[in-house]
Amino acid sequence: MEKPPDSVGIVKTQYFTFAESPNEMLLEKGGKLGPVTIAYETYGTLNKDKSNALLVCHALSGSAHAAGYYTDDDIKGLKKNTGWWDLMIGPGKPMDTNKYFIICSNILGSCYGSTGPSSVNPATGKEYAMTFPEVTIPDMVKAQKVLLDHLGIEKLVSVIGGSMGGMQALEWALQFPDTPKSVVVIAASAALSAQEIALDAVGRNAIKMDEHWENGNYYGKNRALKGLAVARMVGHISYLSEEGMEKKFGRRTEDPVMAASMTPFEKEFENGFAVEGYLAHQGKKFVERFDANAYLYVTKAMDYFDVDNRYGGGSLTKAMKRIKAEVLMVSFTSDWLFSPAQAKEIVQALTLNNKDVSYIEIKSIHGHDAFLLEKKTVAENKILGQAFKNFLIHIK
Amino acid sequence: MEKPPDSVGIVKTQYFTFAESPNEMLLEKGGKLGPVTIAYETYGTLNKDKSNALLVCHALSGSAHAAGYYTDDDIKGLKKNTGWWDLMIGPGKPMDTNKYFIICSNILGSCYGSTGPSSVNPATGKEYAMTFPEVTIPDMVKAQKVLLDHLGIEKLVSVIGGSMGGMQALEWALQFPDTPKSVVVIAASAALSAQEIALDAVGRNAIKMDEHWENGNYYGKNRALKGLAVARMVGHISYLSEEGMEKKFGRRTEDPVMAASMTPFEKEFENGFAVEGYLAHQGKKFVERFDANAYLYVTKAMDYFDVDNRYGGGSLTKAMKRIKAEVLMVSFTSDWLFSPAQAKEIVQALTLNNKDVSYIEIKSIHGHDAFLLEKKTVAENKILGQAFKNFLIHIK
Repeated sequence: MEKPPDSVGIVKTQYFTFAESPNEMLLEKGGKLGPVTIAYETYGTLNKDKSNALLVCHALSGSAHAAGYYTDDDIKGLKKNTGWWDLMIGPGKPMDTNKYFIICSNILGSCYGSTGPSSVNPATGKEYAMTFPEVTIPDMVKAQKVLLDHLGIEKLVSVIGGSMGGMQALEWALQFPDTPKSVVVIAASAALSAQEIALDAVGRNAIKMDEHWENGNYYGKNRALKGLAVARMVGHISYLSEEGMEKKFGRRTEDPVMAASMTPFEKEFENGFAVEGYLAHQGKKFVERFDANAYLYVTKAMDYFDVDNRYGGGSLTKAMKRIKAEVLMVSFTSDWLFSPAQAKEIVQALTLNNKDVSYIEIKSIHGHDAFLLEKKTVAENKILGQAFKNFLIHIK
Repeated sequence: MEKPPDSVGIVKTQYFTFAESPNEMLLEKGGKLGPVTIAYETYGTLNKDKSNALLVCHALSGSAHAAGYYTDDDIKGLKKNTGWWDLMIGPGKPMDTNKYFIICSNILGSCYGSTGPSSVNPATGKEYAMTFPEVTIPDMVKAQKVLLDHLGIEKLVSVIGGSMGGMQALEWALQFPDTPKSVVVIAASAALSAQEIALDAVGRNAIKMDEHWENGNYYGKNRALKGLAVARMVGHISYLSEEGMEKKFGRRTEDPVMAASMTPFEKEFENGFAVEGYLAHQGKKFVERFDANAYLYVTKAMDYFDVDNRYGGGSLTKAMKRIKAEVLMVSFTSDWLFSPAQAKEIVQALTLNNKDVSYIEIKSIHGHDAFLLEKKTVAENKILGQAFKNFLIHIK
């Protein structure tokens, strides 16, 4: 099977390392980190004057692998390593690789190739674990900027991201107002609400109470799996809307065939109602791919994100003053994690500053998940893709 | 200090035991249980024709102690054993003990004197733990009915309860249509939604992953405290509204004085933001008073509650046909755990059956917690108290 004509094809993750001792990266919360490795992928070709670059930012548990495949087996559908935003990125797709050079890098603090708590600290030869310094979204963006400098890119056509990726896009426009010509902020906000912080805190507490967490020193031993699974369950409740959950599961009990196919790990969790089996399955899938300590650091970074206080002395309107990029805000009607109301606050603050801002509220019952590419969210993503096209076409 | 004139004064919990072998109580899910002890309290005086009784039903983690004090120290404010609905029950209060004989019993499966998983199974001499049979809200109501029979009460002026107590009130009108003349269903629904089941499941999973839970056999050993605390944290997020949480905590960081006063147990949990400290504190308070296994059983009972299927073959409207009691439904505008929409479904189903139903939607930013008596919910409770008075006065 050949690669689909609108696919970027087989891609390879690249790695860039900087901030070697004694030039460690200074972090917002006061820590130092070095060397710093950033995993990234690129799609399309950078033009001669390096003016066609787009930066794509991933969400909480994403990776640099936004488009394409790793191996022929992926193309054949034998493996499932298709990039997480493959529907959006490729020749002729909304982020057209015939036109744009697209970069996606794994965030600082994650566990997909960029330096994070599961990385080995060269000074000790052991994983950082909880000795990893606190990182923030501004730090993640700062690291992305170093990568861009390394690639020789001074201007970005756009920075585009959803959820925590949307926060990064917004942070780009604030921290480096002259770099992106535009930003697309999807299903994100300028700061988490108390309820969102609380949900994150429950997840972190579940990880930390896992007997195998051992203050983060579980590498090479038992991994803190159950706690991470429970954290993911809390997450999934917040990613779906009540209406969407009701439609998908309602009060149905677990299908016996599905229940019989559960792994022993999944069976360790509550099931009976279909929604419980779903959560157990999501928990299982997540622990197979994500690091518990990275979850602690990355959710904390989201909690710390606070545009009003970092850039506006407590005022979002003041903070927005520094933005030069054209902004496209996107939210989904049933997203209660990052609600349309939160998006509108940013839109209003930009408007009060006479900034160039567009806003699209996409109707969906799929809650926060609506921005992700799944079968159920095809309609939302068609609208989103069209919105990208319409928006990007006029960014000069 | 004397007892306030509108207080029921010092009260004593009483115990009633039934279903001794070989006459065990048959449970909805197929189990058997006996002997069954029900802890209960009464306030006011039963009149000669036993026609002035009100039954008050408590929520998830409540007890039979709905009004009054246990000791003089409580009256003096030295101890905090005032009944959980003391503001509503007493001479001249909305549930007037000059007029009514009020009964409140601890639910089956709980840990406040009624038989539950922490009770000793006389057959083994050990706590039931997870050998306790599954109990449901219909079982709880059935046990309350046996208590009423024991007290010689055939008719109830009303059954009144909030949250899970509201579910019991509704169940009373369905299972024993001839017993209550009226029911007051506050902040409750005919069945949990998928989202609510999911939140309960997260709490249960947190308990079960606690290394000290030991499949429920923690009695006399370490108690499953951390897991229960995390379960309570999830609960508290659902009891508050997003708006209320934002107003109360926002993005404030923990007050250093408060943080310094934290117990070692509280400090084991995430704090930093004020909302995190609040959750840790709620978790601590809860583990000091509640049993983890009871939490598993009682939340499961809530999940199982399903009026449509038990009484209406899948139709709420059909289920409501059997109701003879006059119904007062109460909901709170910002309650997202048991939303006004869910209350209105019951109201509509009753109306379609030409039943006598009133509905009050009380404006509040305090979410599900609005029905509980706290300083912040005084306004809501004044309205609620007045609603009780207005409603009860015409029940003959």
